[in-house]
Formats: sequence, C-alpha cells, structure tokens
Amino acid sequence: PTRPPFDLDQATEQIRAGSRAWIARAITLVESTRPDHRRLAQELLAQLAHTAPSTVRLGVSGVPGAGKSTFINALGGRLIDAGHAVAVLAVDPSSTRTGGSILGDKTRMTRLAADPRAFVRPSPSAGTLGGVAKATREAMVVLEAAGYDVVIVETVGVGQSETAVAEMVDTFLLLTLARSGDQLQGIKKGVLELADVIAVNKADGKHETEAWKAARELSGALHLLGASTGVLTCSAQEGTGLDEVWAQVLRHRQGLDLTAKRREQLIGWTWSMVRDTLLDQLRESPAVRELTPAVEAQVRAGELTPASAAEQILQALRRT
Amino acid sequence: PTRPPFDLDQATEQIRAGSRAWIARAITLVESTRPDHRRLAQELLAQLAHTAPSTVRLGVSGVPGAGKSTFINALGGRLIDAGHAVAVLAVDPSSTRTGGSILGDKTRMTRLAADPRAFVRPSPSAGTLGGVAKATREAMVVLEAAGYDVVIVETVGVGQSETAVAEMVDTFLLLTLARSGDQLQGIKKGVLELADVIAVNKADGKHETEAWKAARELSGALHLLGASTGVLTCSAQEGTGLDEVWAQVLRHRQGLDLTAKRREQLIGWTWSMVRDTLLDQLRESPAVRELTPAVEAQVRAGELTPASAAEQILQALRRT
Repeated sequence: PTRPPFDLDQATEQIRAGSRAWIARAITLVESTRPDHRRLAQELLAQLAHTAPSTVRLGVSGVPGAGKSTFINALGGRLIDAGHAVAVLAVDPSSTRTGGSILGDKTRMTRLAADPRAFVRPSPSAGTLGGVAKATREAMVVLEAAGYDVVIVETVGVGQSETAVAEMVDTFLLLTLARSGDQLQGIKKGVLELADVIAVNKADGKHETEAWKAARELSGALHLLGASTGVLTCSAQEGTGLDEVWAQVLRHRQGLDLTAKRREQLIGWTWSMVRDTLLDQLRESPAVRELTPAVEAQVRAGELTPASAAEQILQALRRT
Repeated sequence: PTRPPFDLDQATEQIRAGSRAWIARAITLVESTRPDHRRLAQELLAQLAHTAPSTVRLGVSGVPGAGKSTFINALGGRLIDAGHAVAVLAVDPSSTRTGGSILGDKTRMTRLAADPRAFVRPSPSAGTLGGVAKATREAMVVLEAAGYDVVIVETVGVGQSETAVAEMVDTFLLLTLARSGDQLQGIKKGVLELADVIAVNKADGKHETEAWKAARELSGALHLLGASTGVLTCSAQEGTGLDEVWAQVLRHRQGLDLTAKRREQLIGWTWSMVRDTLLDQLRESPAVRELTPAVEAQVRAGELTPASAAEQILQALRRT
C-alpha cells in the first residue's frame, strides 16, 4: 500500500494527538540514514521539541539473566495503572530487525505490548552505537511529544551502550542478582559508576534473605568506595519492591537540576555526533582499510613507531 | 654554546652507552613538535627499539597528598641498592617547564635526583594529554635503550592522564591513604578500575592500625565487587612495606603475557594518536571555534536539534 507523503504539520498534529501509526512512522523516519529523510526528521524534531514535557527518563541495565524485560514489564504495568503513559525503547547495537532479541523482548513484555497506554519499540539496527543512540534519543523526543510521560530505555550491556544510555536519561538503574560473595560478577567495568540506583532482583522465595543480604553488603561496599548509590531489593516476578525502586528513582531525580542536566546532555550529544562522524569516516575510509593490516604488522614487529604509523594512516585518510 | 648536529648513529651509540647528556637530548627531541625534529625522532626511536630489554614499567597514581614523590623516591632508592637502574617519568598535562610541580618533584626526590643510576625527567609540557603521553612513551623507549631496567611513570591525576599511563605500563599502582569510612574519597571515577595493585601509604606511627584496617576493608569491598586487586600497606617515609609492594608488582607482572600486552599497547597508541590528531583538528579549526557559541546557544534553547548542530559543525570543519 502506498502511504501519503510525510507532511510535517500533519505529522506534528497526529503525533501530539497520540496516533500510534504516526509515532511509528516518525520513529522510522529518525532511524533512516537517507539524506532527505534526515533533513525531514530534523525539521520534525525541532517542531516537536517545542512541547516541553516533564517526562521521567529512566535507563535500565543489567547482566543477562537479571530479568530486565520482566522488570520493565512489571514496573511499566504498575505505572500505567497509576495513570502514566509508558514508552520503552532499547539501545542494542548488536540487534537486527529480524534477530531474536527483539522478538524476545516483545514476547516477554506481554503486559506492555498489549496495552494502548504503552509503546514498546525495539532497538534500531543502524549499525554503530553512535547511530543507534542517536535514533533512540530522537525517538524519545517523538514519544514525549506524543504524551508518554515515562520513557524507559533498556540497554543490553554490549560495549559502550550503557554510557550512551546514561547520557540520555535522568536516572540510570542497574539490575543485579544475589550471588554470594560476588554480587557484581559479570557487570562490565565502569557500569557500576553509572548507576544512580541499584536493585537486586529476584528477591523472592528462598532467595529473599540472600538478596537482602547482598543488597546490604553492596551498599556497604559502595559507601566505602565513596559512592552513595541506593541499593534496594525487588522481585519483578512477584511484583514486590517495585514501588520502592520507583520511589528511589524519583528521589534521585528530585535531587537533580533537571533543566541544566538536559541542556548539557544536548550539548554533549552534539559533540559526540561530531566525533562519531569523524571516527566513522576514519573507519570507513577505503585507503585506511587497505593500509591498516601492513602498518599494524610493522608496528607489532617493531619496524615502525606508533607515531610514524599514525602519520601514514592520517595521510591515507586525507587521500580519501 | 652551539651543539654539534644530531647524528643518528652517534646518538644511538651514546644512548646505548648510557650517556646522560645524549639521553636528555634525545628526550628533548621526542618532545619537539617541529616537523624535522619529529622525523629525526622517529628514525632514532625505530633504531633504539631494536634493543628489546625486559624493563619493568610501573605506573604510579594517587590523590594529592598520598605521597607519590616520597614513595617513588624511597622505592627507587631501594631498587638502585638492589642493582637496578631506575628512570622516573611523569604525565602531567597541566605542568609547565617553569611551573612549581616539577621543581617540587625534583626537590622531593632527593635520593633519586642525586644518584647516577637514576634518571628523573619531569613531564613534558606539550599542551594536550595526547601530546604529553606520546612524548612520555617515546622517552621510555630512549631510557630502556640506555639500560634503565625499571621505568616508573607518575601521574598527577589530572583528567584522563591515568588512563594514558595505564596504557603505557605493565602494572598500575594506586597509592591511597587511610581515611575512616571513605578510603577512596577523592579518587577520580574509573581510576580504581585501572589499579592492578593498591597500597595504603603513610601506615606509620599512630596511623598504622588504621591503615591496616583500611586496606583490609578496601580489599573486601573490591572482592565483593568482583575485582581481585591486591591491597597492601606501606610507609614511604619509614621505608616499611615497600618490598612487599614491589613483590606484588612483580607478581602481577608475572601473570601477564607481556609480549602480547606490549604489542597491543603499540597498536592502541597508534590509533589513539590518529584519533587525537583528528580531534585536535576539530578543536583547533578556526571556523568551528567561531561557529560554536552560537550553535550551542541554539541547541540549549531547543531551536536546533543536536544532529543539525553536529552537521553544521562538520560543515565548518570541512571548510577549514
């Protein structure tokens, strides 16, 4: 079926009215890398950004198996019951539109997938982390203009995706599990420092005491290391502790100068897009790609100094 | 006095023979940004690198007041007594050749400054961290060729200098102090993760028990968070615990595949020099500098999306 051309004013109006079809079209537009789509997307975003809603932006991360999808489904369900409209986005540069992780998410987020007051959108599959993060940030603007007042951004913990997500949300929540002795085993370096709130999930049944103990130990260790991160327990499965986690998220957010934080995030995104583009040009330069194996081999063999090698690579880039 | 022209073969021979004057000249050469100096420096380094010594490369970091200079002076003195030749370098992008920090270092490292088997060189003052790190890495090659078998690189904890130092050494040592409850207060985020060995310094007099307790707590907290970093106590002032710290450094180093680690460090430096150059070009572009204030103001005001702003900045860069 041919769709009518994308009309900016109509799109703005329909998105503000909450049209799911137009929201989806707009997100597809911001995910596109075609130059004409990109221009149109930027015009649309500038128009939509004039609505300045007081959305709660929450990042959720955690090791595989920590129960992120179940947690988001359960928390999102409660927020909807309390009158919120909840959008769920993801940053997963490893995903593909046909891959398993998205299907998995949709299947596990049964409550949210079926609810008209929720909008669940899988991660864009646009290759680089920079591209995926950009599309997700822009989708957030669309969803906020459409009236979603809670936006949850999930990260699957691949590479630097946690940092990208932490830079687009107000509060970053880390889900973990109780494992005696090594509460944070498997959590990538640096992620712990990004966490504003930590929740030990699966605190249910025979694991409840263990989870409570783990949270207390973790809190003590973090305090000793100079952090004041709140550590709570919850069970997404049984729905316990979720209200407390949400209260802690709101407490963290109330301690922020939100206007200033978001303004600085905008400036930060601008420069990170500039840097990403420059580094993409480096990565994609045919001359650099051709030169790299020989130059690296010479450096490894000690025949070429790193500075000389860098000079050769930069010369190849200039030839591109 | 006019010096004779820098002859490569003579320089190589003199440096290998340990001539302090030629070592100093060679380091000044690698610090220079003049294109003819740079070319000459790279030829010299390629020639010197053919000697492949089994130098111990140790990074030392810590908060101001942790006693880094005193520690390096005391440890270096012991290593010299044990038959080593010790070189001390620094990465301090905030330093200037006439500034106080260098003078301070030289004054505090009295033992090493006076010893012919030690070579203490202040941080190059070449502006950016990338430039300073490059000069320090290259000075390390000169000193190793000259027969220094222990190279200690000090960092003063400014910005990202710890990461740069961790990437040029085999083992990264963090010095800290016993402070009840908050052992790592003041240590920059991320530095803890770089540490291969941690030593609680100033474990002397009435602080000895406190330091010992702090080390035990720190070790426990780190273990709980999944790290296996060794935590020891020492007193650089009294010379206690230094042998144990050194033994721990050697233990860490023995666990490494040193050949592979150093090869990958060379490749890593190559690409970081490429990236640094690209980002320097961005930072120094007159067109970008001129455009930035207006573009950032529009982004803050919500009149321009980050993606459009990034596009404008990249266009300005291309015009440069």
